[in-house]
Order: sequence, then structure tokens, then C-alpha cells
Amino acid sequence: MYRPQIKVVDCTIRDGGLMNKSRFSFETVRNVYKSVCAAGIDIVELGYRNSKQMFSIDEYGPWRFCDEENLKKIVDGINPVRNGTSCPVRVNSNRACHDISNRVKSDKTKIAIMQDAHKAVAEDILPKEKSVVDVIRVATYVKDIDKAIKLANNATEKGYEATINIMSISVALERELDEALQQIEKETKISACYIVDSFGALYSEDIDFFIDKFKKYLKNKEVGVHCHNHQQLGFANTIAGIIRGANYLDGTLYGLGRAAGNCPLELLISFLKNPKFDIRPLLEVISRDILPLSSEITWGYSIPYMITGILNRHPDVAMKLLEKNSDEKAKKDFLKFYEELTEEEVED
Amino acid sequence: MYRPQIKVVDCTIRDGGLMNKSRFSFETVRNVYKSVCAAGIDIVELGYRNSKQMFSIDEYGPWRFCDEENLKKIVDGINPVRNGTSCPVRVNSNRACHDISNRVKSDKTKIAIMQDAHKAVAEDILPKEKSVVDVIRVATYVKDIDKAIKLANNATEKGYEATINIMSISVALERELDEALQQIEKETKISACYIVDSFGALYSEDIDFFIDKFKKYLKNKEVGVHCHNHQQLGFANTIAGIIRGANYLDGTLYGLGRAAGNCPLELLISFLKNPKFDIRPLLEVISRDILPLSSEITWGYSIPYMITGILNRHPDVAMKLLEKNSDEKAKKDFLKFYEELTEEEVED
Repeated sequence: MYRPQIKVVDCTIRDGGLMNKSRFSFETVRNVYKSVCAAGIDIVELGYRNSKQMFSIDEYGPWRFCDEENLKKIVDGINPVRNGTSCPVRVNSNRACHDISNRVKSDKTKIAIMQDAHKAVAEDILPKEKSVVDVIRVATYVKDIDKAIKLANNATEKGYEATINIMSISVALERELDEALQQIEKETKISACYIVDSFGALYSEDIDFFIDKFKKYLKNKEVGVHCHNHQQLGFANTIAGIIRGANYLDGTLYGLGRAAGNCPLELLISFLKNPKFDIRPLLEVISRDILPLSSEITWGYSIPYMITGILNRHPDVAMKLLEKNSDEKAKKDFLKFYEELTEEEVED
Repeated sequence: MYRPQIKVVDCTIRDGGLMNKSRFSFETVRNVYKSVCAAGIDIVELGYRNSKQMFSIDEYGPWRFCDEENLKKIVDGINPVRNGTSCPVRVNSNRACHDISNRVKSDKTKIAIMQDAHKAVAEDILPKEKSVVDVIRVATYVKDIDKAIKLANNATEKGYEATINIMSISVALERELDEALQQIEKETKISACYIVDSFGALYSEDIDFFIDKFKKYLKNKEVGVHCHNHQQLGFANTIAGIIRGANYLDGTLYGLGRAAGNCPLELLISFLKNPKFDIRPLLEVISRDILPLSSEITWGYSIPYMITGILNRHPDVAMKLLEKNSDEKAKKDFLKFYEELTEEEVED
């Protein structure tokens, strides 16, 4: 599938940050950034710019706030097009080095940050010319759509590209969603609006349904998909999105992300046949930086996440069950976990 | 998706046996059997009946041969319909017990074994009335189709249901495949013919392509899909198969199977809305019997399997890389592994 309009977004640090309170080392973030640039990824999301009034800077790491000086430390000397120099990325083989430097000159990986509609403020966004950021992605529940539109308009007015990402869409009420989409079309200048399957509950037929609905209302905006892997459908649903016309596609390295994780970026760019992509820097950074994280962070398919996925529930109950200090026996009693969740449902 | 013609096949012990030389304990096999019966699975495959002339009985466990006396030990006292008694399966909650005993009375889980066309002999199959087996599944490469047809006809003549499962279909030559399908239609009385994605290389569009082709030639046979998870598409491709008309669907508990494993059975029956299925016995057996196996057997998505999947290669090179005694550093150098495989390709 080679469609030039497609934009691939790496959200490893942002979505993965939900599993470690955004406490990645500067070295990890810099290596991820370097590698996705070298791989030709269109956009890289380096974290949240959420409010320090709402998140403790003692409890959360730097990528929950993405201060400009921290972002500058990450990009400094790396982004080749930004500085007009050739690519300084080194990978193991001569052949790879050659290919990459040829490629990167003609492309630029844009930098994105995310603002949660209900946890961020407009004032934290500088005018574009004072920032290394290119894209502001506003994450929202349908109910917070007015806050999201305010933040998105703040971003576009200050010179950024902006997107609105509608979270937990598998439990959105249809009438409210329809109204939100009409507002987005009328009141914003965002480039794309995302279907976010936070619960990993959607099947491909649901992706089709939502894309058709988004396209119906959003005549001048692209549709994006951000899929989770609770039912091992993160990649498959992203493909379903591509086939149905989504052009903004989120993925993360080795699927690192909340709970069962995301659509793996390495699979996504293998599927997309665009010759501008190079999988090799991604393989290298997964080996060196992402795989070692699995000793501290546990993500990927497991039965508790599968259960929240099939029940269309937020994964937080499964994340709590699987926490490091939780009861080891309870972690493995899948039937009990399932019956607790379904009995709750009966009581509703 | 509730389509009464659909048959769900559990292949945990057979496909998982490719990862441990079919050396599961009798207790494990009996628990798997008990649980899939209680869950309402249509068919359970308990291993291979391959030739003792071609496999050493010292090296391989009992489920590579599935001697009748061993199968009898597994099913003895369990299969409720076979004996006309109520379900003796116990699960933790009273509610589950009640549901299960109500359900199982009206269903029967058939027992299948597999014969490899090039590693099995017709004489190892007893007349049906002397066997606990119901279904003989013949696995074959396209090139061995004449051997497969001979074994399948041997099975149907002796009173069994039979299927032919075409392995490594992602590298089959189309002209040879077309001819094989024509032969199968004309020369056999099998119930179903399977698309087997041994390399985990197919995308949903490929599943559509193969199902259309199979349906074109096989007017009186069902089409089956057996998917591997090298690109995290095992479940998604099974759904794609269902949508396109496949009625024989393979899965395994927690995806246990060769390399990246298979379509997880627990996901598949959650997707299928047939009320005869009950996920709870599956959750219980995964907790108690399957999860503990992960200390001895490693299966599931990992980058080396992903690489063989995207390159449409047999996973054996990745399995070798990931073997217990292999070099730990090499196991994690994904770029090197990728470049070795792609450089080989260039030399071809």
C-alpha cells in the first residue's frame, strides 16, 4: 500500500509514558528520535504538554510536560533537514548509512506533543516560531470536545499544525459523537481527527463504521487511527483503517504503549510499501533501547487486557491487577478476574 | 458473527507440539481436552499420527504418534456426550458449572489427529470403529498433494472425516496450487480444505485471494484457515477468513504454537457470538496449564519472527536464533538478523 498522503506517527514515548509516568531517560528519547528520523517516519510524538498544575513534577518525568528546553536537548544536532546538513545517524552497516543519508535529506520528521483536553492549558503553548514543536495533538473524550476545540484553535492560531484525537471511542454515544464531529468541521482548522480505540475493543467492521462516519462530517480533514492491541488487532485495525481511507496512522516501537500496547511501528512500515521508509534504524533502536525496557515495563498481549478488550472496558482494572506489587496469584487467576468484571456488569 | 456452519478447531497440543517435540504431560493434554469440551469447541486436535519409522520415539513425545491407547487415557471419563452422562468438568464457580453441564449435553467435541503427507503412512490409521478419533487432518505442501490425497482417501474410506491442510501457502506456485485444488475436488471426499499460513506472511487481502480461489475450485468442500501470528495477524486474518466465507477455523489456547504462535482461541470464540461457546473453561486452563508452559517454551510475537513473516520466509531460521542455547547477544541483534536474511536474498 503506497499512498503518498499517508502520514505515519510514532508515539512510543508519549503512549509508552502512560506505563512509566513519562520517565524515559534523555538517552532513550534521543535514540528513539534519531531512529525514527532515519527511518523516514513523518511525525514523532515526544510526550505530553500537560499542566504542571495538574501533574506533579516530582511524580512525573519530563515527557509529561515536554518543556521546550528538554525538547531542544533531544533534537539538538540530529534533525538533518532542520539544519540543512546531512544525516549524522549511524547504523551498523555501511549500506544502511548510505541509504539513510540519501533519504533523510528530502524528508523531515515533524515533532508532535500531546495536550489532554481536560489536563492542559493553552498558555503552555508558545508561538510556533519560539518552539521546536510542529504539531499539537489534542486528546479528548467526546464530552470534553469544547475544551479540545479551544486547545486546537489555540495551537493553529499560534502557527502549529493540530489534530484532535477522540479517545475511548468504543463507548462514545453516537449522537454526541456526531455533534462533536460537526463542531470540529465547522469550528477548527485541524489537519486530522483521530479514531482512538483506547480499550482495544474495536473489530475491523467497527473501524469501517467510524471512518465512514468521520468522512461524512469532516470534508476538509484527514481521518487518523490510533489502535490498541488488547485483542491483538492493533496492526490489523490500522490496516483496515488504511483500506477505508485513514491517512494518519499511529504506531509505536515494538508496540510499547498503554496496557497491551499499540500497533507496532515496525509492522506498519513493512506493510506500507512507500520506499521512503527504512525499517533498519527501527530494528536497531528496538534492540538497543526498547527491548531492555521490558525489565521495568510490562506491555503487550495478556489475558487480563484481552478480557477488558472483549468487554469494552478501560484497561485500568487490568493494569491495576498486573501492577508489580499486586498479588501474584490473583494476577494469574483469569477466570476470577473475568467473573468479577462480568458480575459487576450484571449488577449495573 | 454467528454462523451455524462454523467449526472451531483447537490445535494447542498439535501445533504447540512443534515447540517441545510433542512432549506434553498426560495431565496437560487431559486438562486441555476437558476444557475445550466444556467450552463447546467443535473439534480438538490432540497431536500427530506420524510414522515411527520417520520420528524417533526416544526423541519425540507421545503426541507425535497419538497411539490409540494414549488417546483413550486422555478422553476416558471426560467426553460427556460420548458416554451419555452429564459433564464432569469442574470450574471454580457454581454458575460456570451449571452453565457448562447444561451446554455440553447437546454438543460433542470431535477428536482430530494430524498426518503429515510426507511423514505418515496409511496403515497407522485403524478402521474408525476401533478408534476414538473422529477427524484425520492431512497436512501437505502443494508438491506432496498426491501423497495427501492418498492419506485423506484412506481416512474417509476407513470411516473418518478428513481435511487437507495446504501448508506454506504463501510460497505456493499458483499454477501448482490450482491443479492441486482441482485434484482435491475431483479425487477426495474431504469435508474441508485449509489455507495454512505457515510463515505468518499473509495480509487480509491475501486471505481474500486464497479463499476466493479455493471456493472457485472446491464446490462441495468447506474452506478452512489456519493462521500464524508472526505479524500479529493470526486473529485478524481468521476474522478476514470468516467474513470471506471460511467455516473451519483453527485456534490455540493463548496462541500456543510454532514460532509466533497461532490465532488465540480465547479471542476467536469471543468474536464468534455463537451462544454454545463458553470462554470460562478456556480462561481457567490457560491460567493453570498453558501459562506455566511459558517457562519452558517461548512462543508469541517477537522481532525475529516478525522479520521472517515480512520476508515470507519459514520461521525455522528465527526459531534457531531464539533457541535456548543460542548466543544471547545474537538473539537481540535484530538488525544483523534482518541484514543476513536480506543479503541472502540479494545473492539468490
